[in-house]
Amino acid sequence: MLFKYEVETDKREAFVNIDSLVQKALDECKLQFGIITVFTPHTTAGITINENADPDVVKDLVYGMNVTFDNKKEYQHAEENSDSHMKSTLVGASETLIVENGKVIYGTWQSTYFAEFDGPRKRTVYIKVIKA
Amino acid sequence: MLFKYEVETDKREAFVNIDSLVQKALDECKLQFGIITVFTPHTTAGITINENADPDVVKDLVYGMNVTFDNKKEYQHAEENSDSHMKSTLVGASETLIVENGKVIYGTWQSTYFAEFDGPRKRTVYIKVIKA
Amino acid sequence: MLFKYEVETDKREAFVNIDSLVQKALDECKLQFGIITVFTPHTTAGITINENADPDVVKDLVYGMNVTFDNKKEYQHAEENSDSHMKSTLVGASETLIVENGKVIYGTWQSTYFAEFDGPRKRTVYIKVIKA
Repeated sequence: MLFKYEVETDKREAFVNIDSLVQKALDECKLQFGIITVFTPHTTAGITINENADPDVVKDLVYGMNVTFDNKKEYQHAEENSDSHMKSTLVGASETLIVENGKVIYGTWQSTYFAEFDGPRKRTVYIKVIKA
Repeated sequence: MLFKYEVETDKREAFVNIDSLVQKALDECKLQFGIITVFTPHTTAGITINENADPDVVKDLVYGMNVTFDNKKEYQHAEENSDSHMKSTLVGASETLIVENGKVIYGTWQSTYFAEFDGPRKRTVYIKVIKA
Repeated sequence: MLFKYEVETDKREAFVNIDSLVQKALDECKLQFGIITVFTPHTTAGITINENADPDVVKDLVYGMNVTFDNKKEYQHAEENSDSHMKSTLVGASETLIVENGKVIYGTWQSTYFAEFDGPRKRTVYIKVIKA
């Protein structure tokens, strides 16, 4: 089964926790054992897993990525968002998660995030469920 | 089913659009619904998804990655391509794509790229198809 | 089937070859054809594929990542390991591997590594097997 959800972002760069969307898909399809692929169809965004306990972690990720992957004056792309494309390729457009007994296997501090690198925008996330 | 294709690169760093290889695999196996894993068996290359509309985007990615992940004089590896290994680990050796009604789910601007970081060379790409 | 293994790391940053764990899972479940997802439930570690021949490669990766993704004084996270979270998000929490005739498809120099970015610690790796 395939699920399609909308995510709204409110800044140019933002990490939006999408655990509730993942759980919604699992609840609807009643998957007990398998994997799920969380995929975003945008070239200036990504899907990643990181800490959900201290909100400073994702703030530091945004800050660190902006400094490390700055928008260089040598970039030629007319939309002036080549830094966003760079972050997208490095973070990656998808994550694959393991499902056991109806729940995603996460570590204590892990959540899945939609990583926005060229917002604010309305964005899309696909969740594909594989029984196994 | 598993497909094996060859990709030829013409520079040290290059992003080669491999959408036609992905579609070739889909056409041959007639997959309607599922996922596919696109994997490269090289440690100085990667697979990534990014923009296919303006060719300046992948040029900027090559430029930005060369500046950010430069070949440092402190590197010890005798082949002098540790920067290529770094880019490979950060971009990643594979991408997982979702297939629905016989087509890969892509955003408007997305394509799959073989990312060469130590060419020019003849390279290999595997495509594994999972029905689901 | 799902397998859970422990990995012990001996430095703050280390790349630990986990090919033997992957093969152990394959031997136990006798998978002939399919994919496996190797996943780590930690937010300051990752899973990656890189060279196993010259040990200087992974040393250079550790060095290069520490210089490129340094622990910035502007970071706010109280545990003072935001650099580790950054590396985790960029390397990624999982890798998907292809299995054919009971063996992982690797290139000549490829191995799968547990990438530690905030050790030394006892860490966990999950391996999920998908027959296909």
